[in-house]
Amino acid sequence: MTTEGTIAAIATGPGGALSIIRVSGGEAIAVCDRIFRAASGRKLAEQPGYTIHFGRIITPQTDETIDEVLVSLFRNPRSYTGEDMIEISCHGSAYIRQEIMKRLIEAGARQAGPGEFTVRAFLNGKIDLSQAEAVADMIASSDRATHAMALNQMRGGYSQAFDTLREELLHLVSLMELELDFSEEDVTFADRHQLEDLLEKISEQIKTLLQSFNLGNAVKTGIGVAIVGAPNVGKSTLLNALLREDRAMVSDIAGTTRDVIEETICIDGVHFRFIDTAGIRTTDDTLERMGIQRTFSSIEKAKIILLLADGTDPNNTIIEKIAHSLQEITLQPEQRLYIILNKTDKTESDNPATLTDQINRQFGYPTLAISAKQGTNLDRLTALLSQSIDTDPLYDGTTVVSNTRHYEALLHASEALIRAQEGLKNGLSSDLLSQDMREVLYHLETITGKIATDDILGEIFSKFCIGK
Amino acid sequence: MTTEGTIAAIATGPGGALSIIRVSGGEAIAVCDRIFRAASGRKLAEQPGYTIHFGRIITPQTDETIDEVLVSLFRNPRSYTGEDMIEISCHGSAYIRQEIMKRLIEAGARQAGPGEFTVRAFLNGKIDLSQAEAVADMIASSDRATHAMALNQMRGGYSQAFDTLREELLHLVSLMELELDFSEEDVTFADRHQLEDLLEKISEQIKTLLQSFNLGNAVKTGIGVAIVGAPNVGKSTLLNALLREDRAMVSDIAGTTRDVIEETICIDGVHFRFIDTAGIRTTDDTLERMGIQRTFSSIEKAKIILLLADGTDPNNTIIEKIAHSLQEITLQPEQRLYIILNKTDKTESDNPATLTDQINRQFGYPTLAISAKQGTNLDRLTALLSQSIDTDPLYDGTTVVSNTRHYEALLHASEALIRAQEGLKNGLSSDLLSQDMREVLYHLETITGKIATDDILGEIFSKFCIGK
Repeated sequence: MTTEGTIAAIATGPGGALSIIRVSGGEAIAVCDRIFRAASGRKLAEQPGYTIHFGRIITPQTDETIDEVLVSLFRNPRSYTGEDMIEISCHGSAYIRQEIMKRLIEAGARQAGPGEFTVRAFLNGKIDLSQAEAVADMIASSDRATHAMALNQMRGGYSQAFDTLREELLHLVSLMELELDFSEEDVTFADRHQLEDLLEKISEQIKTLLQSFNLGNAVKTGIGVAIVGAPNVGKSTLLNALLREDRAMVSDIAGTTRDVIEETICIDGVHFRFIDTAGIRTTDDTLERMGIQRTFSSIEKAKIILLLADGTDPNNTIIEKIAHSLQEITLQPEQRLYIILNKTDKTESDNPATLTDQINRQFGYPTLAISAKQGTNLDRLTALLSQSIDTDPLYDGTTVVSNTRHYEALLHASEALIRAQEGLKNGLSSDLLSQDMREVLYHLETITGKIATDDILGEIFSKFCIGK
Repeated sequence: MTTEGTIAAIATGPGGALSIIRVSGGEAIAVCDRIFRAASGRKLAEQPGYTIHFGRIITPQTDETIDEVLVSLFRNPRSYTGEDMIEISCHGSAYIRQEIMKRLIEAGARQAGPGEFTVRAFLNGKIDLSQAEAVADMIASSDRATHAMALNQMRGGYSQAFDTLREELLHLVSLMELELDFSEEDVTFADRHQLEDLLEKISEQIKTLLQSFNLGNAVKTGIGVAIVGAPNVGKSTLLNALLREDRAMVSDIAGTTRDVIEETICIDGVHFRFIDTAGIRTTDDTLERMGIQRTFSSIEKAKIILLLADGTDPNNTIIEKIAHSLQEITLQPEQRLYIILNKTDKTESDNPATLTDQINRQFGYPTLAISAKQGTNLDRLTALLSQSIDTDPLYDGTTVVSNTRHYEALLHASEALIRAQEGLKNGLSSDLLSQDMREVLYHLETITGKIATDDILGEIFSKFCIGK
């Protein structure tokens, strides 16, 4: 990880009318001046930053034109990388892109590796590590929710959350370490009450962030919704009906891979991942039991469980079956369960409203009557799904943790913090106390990259695309 | 075809680190000011052209940020379209691109059609029609030769070739038409000798351009090379050997479709299209005769014919077979034929050099001994292929016709010109003469689009990509 040399890369996807080639580094302007002839006749070296220049990319030896281009000029430190930067906007031809890259390299640049522009932005102090990671998340975001999380993080969500507390903590740790130098004199520079308050404040903040991972991670990977129920209650029909409702939204989004995650539907800007399961019933058949086992592990992983019942069954059968299914399901505290009465199109004589009320009262779960086949009340079902996720923190600027690396760092920080708090209570010596607090700081600083090894950086930036 | 309204489109391919969204039209700056908040706090409307502005794209109602972007500002007439233009450089996410497009449209822009930016550049007089067509060719170009042709045309090759002659012709036609007003007085304003010279000059120029289509069209579609010869002389081995030699170059180029054109290899920046043919021999088998028939039609269409012979045959058999094959082939004047003696790796005892000399003397065609299997002399073969095309006009700034529409227009102009020249010789009346000359002008002007119907424009621009 270095800022040595001048790097160049194609920054736009293949095809299209235009392409952008980026150049960054101490020699970026000199390198481009070797292969660019401005229509004005002037050198880029003479121009101020944030200006655009029309001209030709040439082969310097022959003055042969490769393309007519626009060159955008940025000067250190007012650029993405914090270095001198050039962006060449050329025609979107694979041949032209390649020829311009060749000439840039002949003129002294080297091909950039994945994420190397962002690495430089990080190493030059333009952004912290969590912001750098958010850039990749931004590019990968495919719905309003993941986009909002990434954007907040990119705009410095973590730094805002931590910076003040971090500095206060650092101040107190330093005072405490000063006490060690005077240990024989038994003085205390660090106010223990102030320290206690501060640790409590940090603890609260870390707790909030750790809890936000529930939402952040679910939103990032898609909110899991398990559709369960006895065989033939219409689970697959419901899934198909939901897909049909939202087909346009699904197809709008690039990279929705249906093979891996069962079926994904975007509702109010959040992706829900529907898991169609095997019907739950008691059986001695080994294969069927394996299927049911898989159903239960789907239920464990889901955030929302839709328990389907067949509305054409007699009322007491319905209630009996629901009771049986509920016995089999162990709900975790953060899970939501809804009972869905399906096939209401075939039950004209009955009054589904009365029945849903009864089920709701008896079992205590929200209950909704629908017809998957006719599409009745599907809008109410999607509204129910949408409401079961409190998406406010995604849009109100709250920092929501969605990155596993950050979550783990927060967990480690939290552990060290608990040790420090207990130590403080039990009158632990300053040197041991300051060690624990240093560990809290260390873990928080790995998130923003104030502390980062080349291994961590390599791991993070290897996932970036070239040109970013 | 209109310049009404403000248009917007994504101009870069999917994927990549960055995307560019283009906006053009009288309202372009106002539209962007509605959804862009510059970090400087200033409006784009206050800024000069050729400047770059950092800021946020927002939802105006909520001030929610969609992305942090760079906005490039161009002011009428100093822009690609000749109108006020904005280019938004945002993160390369499908979601972000789509959201920004949505907001631009809500703010008053409309989605641009294919090539609509270039249509505006044409309608606003920034470029002529042949230059507009060259933009599409530039984007499609995949080797040095097609790129050079497109670039020369884009930089106004036709206009340079025609403009002076066109104006002289127009001047003389006007004078001639003035004579009609005074027809009863029998005056001549237009100098007939000067007219004769001018028509001759134009005729020469059109002839040169028409001839250049041979090269231009061949380069654009790939130079056809038919590999012919008796069965089992190693035709397919040669093709595979050539492909292996140049595999890297072939795979470098996007869109090389092997299914349609047999096999394409890039040699010295020019694509050669190799056509592996059925062996030529006399046969009564109907199916085999159909194959041989196809071979002959391949030969007709090819620019270069490689006649392969098996070097392991006895010398007199080789010569006999070559003589037989040559009898079957009718060469057109612009076609080149080379005799290739293959399998020289298996003929150590003989002296291939002596034999190739003998074949060359006897038949009068350049002859080369190779081993397709060992790769011997393949470099000399590719050099031979490269030399058989005079590519100088592609790189020395000569206008080379590569577009069928231009070729046809030139043909029509040429026909009218011949009529005018004959008319002049036979003392045709001024009104008929001026009609022929008007027709010459008409056809030349359709090339640069001085005369263009909406049909022609629609046909041309429908092949453009959106965003160009």
